[in-house]
Amino acid sequence: MSDTVVVGLDVGGTSTRAVAVTLAGERLGTGRGGGGNPTSHGAERAAAELLTALRGALHGVDPTRVRAGIIGLAGAGRLLADPHGRAAFDRAWSQAGLRCPYAVHGDALVGYASGTAAPDGTVLIAGTGAIAAQVRDLRLDRTADGHGWLLGDTGSGFWLGREAVRRLLAALDAGADPGPLGRRVLTELLGSAEVAARPRDTADALVQAVTRRPPVELARLAPLVVAGAVDGEPVATGLIGEAAASLVESAARIRPAGATSPVVLGGGLLTGDTPLAAAVRAETARRWPDAAVRSAGDGAAGAAWLAARDLPEVTDPVALHALLVPEAA
Amino acid sequence: MSDTVVVGLDVGGTSTRAVAVTLAGERLGTGRGGGGNPTSHGAERAAAELLTALRGALHGVDPTRVRAGIIGLAGAGRLLADPHGRAAFDRAWSQAGLRCPYAVHGDALVGYASGTAAPDGTVLIAGTGAIAAQVRDLRLDRTADGHGWLLGDTGSGFWLGREAVRRLLAALDAGADPGPLGRRVLTELLGSAEVAARPRDTADALVQAVTRRPPVELARLAPLVVAGAVDGEPVATGLIGEAAASLVESAARIRPAGATSPVVLGGGLLTGDTPLAAAVRAETARRWPDAAVRSAGDGAAGAAWLAARDLPEVTDPVALHALLVPEAA
Repeated sequence: MSDTVVVGLDVGGTSTRAVAVTLAGERLGTGRGGGGNPTSHGAERAAAELLTALRGALHGVDPTRVRAGIIGLAGAGRLLADPHGRAAFDRAWSQAGLRCPYAVHGDALVGYASGTAAPDGTVLIAGTGAIAAQVRDLRLDRTADGHGWLLGDTGSGFWLGREAVRRLLAALDAGADPGPLGRRVLTELLGSAEVAARPRDTADALVQAVTRRPPVELARLAPLVVAGAVDGEPVATGLIGEAAASLVESAARIRPAGATSPVVLGGGLLTGDTPLAAAVRAETARRWPDAAVRSAGDGAAGAAWLAARDLPEVTDPVALHALLVPEAA
Repeated sequence: MSDTVVVGLDVGGTSTRAVAVTLAGERLGTGRGGGGNPTSHGAERAAAELLTALRGALHGVDPTRVRAGIIGLAGAGRLLADPHGRAAFDRAWSQAGLRCPYAVHGDALVGYASGTAAPDGTVLIAGTGAIAAQVRDLRLDRTADGHGWLLGDTGSGFWLGREAVRRLLAALDAGADPGPLGRRVLTELLGSAEVAARPRDTADALVQAVTRRPPVELARLAPLVVAGAVDGEPVATGLIGEAAASLVESAARIRPAGATSPVVLGGGLLTGDTPLAAAVRAETARRWPDAAVRSAGDGAAGAAWLAARDLPEVTDPVALHALLVPEAA
């Protein structure tokens, strides 16, 4: 049984990560490629990054030992619906020497599996965007938000960045002091925290600086809000509180009141010891007091576990989870 | 004195309107051109529409009788800062046979003057976008919002349209009934009020339908919200209330508490007998109980009055306002 290898991949917008692991939990290799989201990068390029990551993970591993693989990626449904994209992924898979089948799942499911082995639960992800999903029998069931920056992604990094600029514009309109967070935003966007003699000129310059770039780049201001909240800055603290409430509200659209299944928090804004993660944990505990709240871990490891658990020799998938995704234990 | 003619122009994004009027209040002519905003259409095209509207207003009028003119347009400051744009407007002015000077002011000032002759007050405009401005001695002083759809325009037609879609998406996420407003939005965007067996498919289709067009086109959903509020639909009524609160909040950033000067409401969403206008009037009366609230009228007439009042023969500008802008009396 320890001869059997499974492969897990987590394909994200900025990097692609792969792991090859035995059913005994021995990590044989890890690999990394560039951003491989087929929606934003095109299926060919995504498949090329996939191959790079796979080759890294399989270096020195006999690929015929690999019995199963799972690829987690955002927009999995769109890839599966596109014969051209699916063919590109098939080619990369066989170019890596793999002969076993593989399956593609949403990145939300892989994130969930990196945090818990429970078959049912909820995953809440906040990075540049934001989405909540209900997991049933380790399949994505209903989702909430994830509607993109124009119409959704409430509480996401984009949302935090946009709201930080909006609060600053309101302060400039009112002729008020921009405050510590406002000064950080001014410095980031205009290179100086100074406000013009006519504050409207500064406001107009801010609007121009933002509209020169793709809107989604407002997400790069989110770390300023997080840092401000760590320092106790009141505007930043308020925004973090609003974001947490919105994120949990999205989860509540799909997660029943009184649910006791685990909640897994994922994405750059909710993993690690951030004030947003703390606020979401507190709000989740208030709404669902009997639920465990977990952090998503290594998505590639979660994918590897999802691949392994359907193999006939696996009789205790929960014990296997502890071996393959040790940080979630 | 009744020989003296003044010209007023209101240059908007969808039409340009001109009026030629004597100081006795006799309307000698009106003219209309296409959208003439130099920011969105380019100064040459804006100047061409200006000339069309001017020629209409001056048909059969000896142009040497015209002693003064005012052009109101959005983005007046940008035009004045651009020598090329200013030259195009100068050419149109003299091609219309006019030898008198003219001045360019923001459309907010012209809207204000179409509603009141008071030298100091506030103008609040909501159409596709939203802006509030403080007027001091019949000049625009400070402004609030008007920051565009990505970062501002809170309570505007864009905002109402976007929020209507967001509420609908939230209902679809939750598996709830879309409600009457939601069904109107579905029909407008997808051609049918039906929700797919998997509501996420309908949500995804909505997001795609919106993102295929420029974001600002969400404003075309605003009339659905207004109509819904007229019918007492709860979601629409709630959105109208939120929009009114946001618009008055923008005005409060620049208008002192306790101010008694008039408030002029302008733009497609605030002129006429709309539920948003009623809600803004109520909220304004609550905040500034001693202020008169007026509706903006014919911007071209307001511009003509602004042009006339500086002529030496005008001794009673308030009486002249009643002659030139009769509907504001």
